Amino acid sequence: MTLVITTFDWVPDISKGYVRDIRVRWACEEAGLPYHVETTSVREKTLPYMLRQPFGQVPMVDDGDISLFESGAILLYLGDRHEALIPRDPRQRAETQQWMIAGLNTLEPVIMAYFMAKISDQNETATGLLQPRLQERLRQLTPVLAKREFIASGCFTAADILICEALRLVAHMDELDPHPVLTDYVQRMTARPAFQQALAAQLDHFTEAA
Amino acid sequence: MTLVITTFDWVPDISKGYVRDIRVRWACEEAGLPYHVETTSVREKTLPYMLRQPFGQVPMVDDGDISLFESGAILLYLGDRHEALIPRDPRQRAETQQWMIAGLNTLEPVIMAYFMAKISDQNETATGLLQPRLQERLRQLTPVLAKREFIASGCFTAADILICEALRLVAHMDELDPHPVLTDYVQRMTARPAFQQALAAQLDHFTEAA
Repeated sequence: MTLVITTFDWVPDISKGYVRDIRVRWACEEAGLPYHVETTSVREKTLPYMLRQPFGQVPMVDDGDISLFESGAILLYLGDRHEALIPRDPRQRAETQQWMIAGLNTLEPVIMAYFMAKISDQNETATGLLQPRLQERLRQLTPVLAKREFIASGCFTAADILICEALRLVAHMDELDPHPVLTDYVQRMTARPAFQQALAAQLDHFTEAA
Repeated sequence: MTLVITTFDWVPDISKGYVRDIRVRWACEEAGLPYHVETTSVREKTLPYMLRQPFGQVPMVDDGDISLFESGAILLYLGDRHEALIPRDPRQRAETQQWMIAGLNTLEPVIMAYFMAKISDQNETATGLLQPRLQERLRQLTPVLAKREFIASGCFTAADILICEALRLVAHMDELDPHPVLTDYVQRMTARPAFQQALAAQLDHFTEAA
């Protein structure tokens, strides 16, 4: 069955290439899973949409009679079905999920808080308070990735999608430069054909939808 | 096999009852799973500890030869083994994981950002910027919980642990008062004997460790 990914019709220029449907597109490309994309209005969020996604976010996914939101949950769901995303061995599976959650709950929150302070609010005091926290998290991640090609399990997993996605946004804000190990990791992951395919498709989507 | 949960020896008073080992204790109580607690120093983080938990956080869990950090990942892991935490039916499982991730990646980040601005930084400008975002997320959650006893799948799941835990911190900061539906939900979940047991055990731990 073809997966249906729903994303917005428009985002600001700074978000193009970074909207979270890219995580699901990337996962589908890695797993060789067919999908197509549907579009919903970002400006006029309809009642049926808000009943389905109470926080007004994207992506949403339909897979037959299963309907899901939260990109992290969609990756867990696809990982249950495709071992290219989450390995079957119990230890590798646990380690992969550990790093998926570390991306979603330990790295991304400090990155998004910094993004909101710097880009959305343009508040210098808040930006100044949050930058050291962001930089500390990046320093803590460095010894882990200094010794590994992939973040978990010795192979590419959905955890690489979520960790790389968090770090791409850091690079986008020019805050990854002091961290060559992390920069190299992002370059390795984003050089993968599956990512390149997903990125091109998202950029095309927002060009066509404009 | 008895699960080993590692937590800190000390936290500030405001954090007592809210340290994230409570999530794992609660899950163990719900699933009837034996566990014991080990203590690590919060002030002197050893190299072996930092090699194991690069972000310097708790809880960590050992289950035989599997060692994990990130409370959310530990709950996913326990949920694979105990259907009291994540149901076996594929739709219920996907819905449970969806709300687990919504707690970790959509609700908790705005709550923690507000907590840091208000409690840690005591920065009024940042607090003022973040309060409307926090309140919007709470308003969005209300219609969901207005119609349900539990957040997902029609029964208690690990998603209730993560959603309730996020909301408990909001209540702790007196920001849940305008939301009677969410207040009722937190009261229902925290009235469960498993939560009461977990809370008492965490409070005892920090009293004894002092």
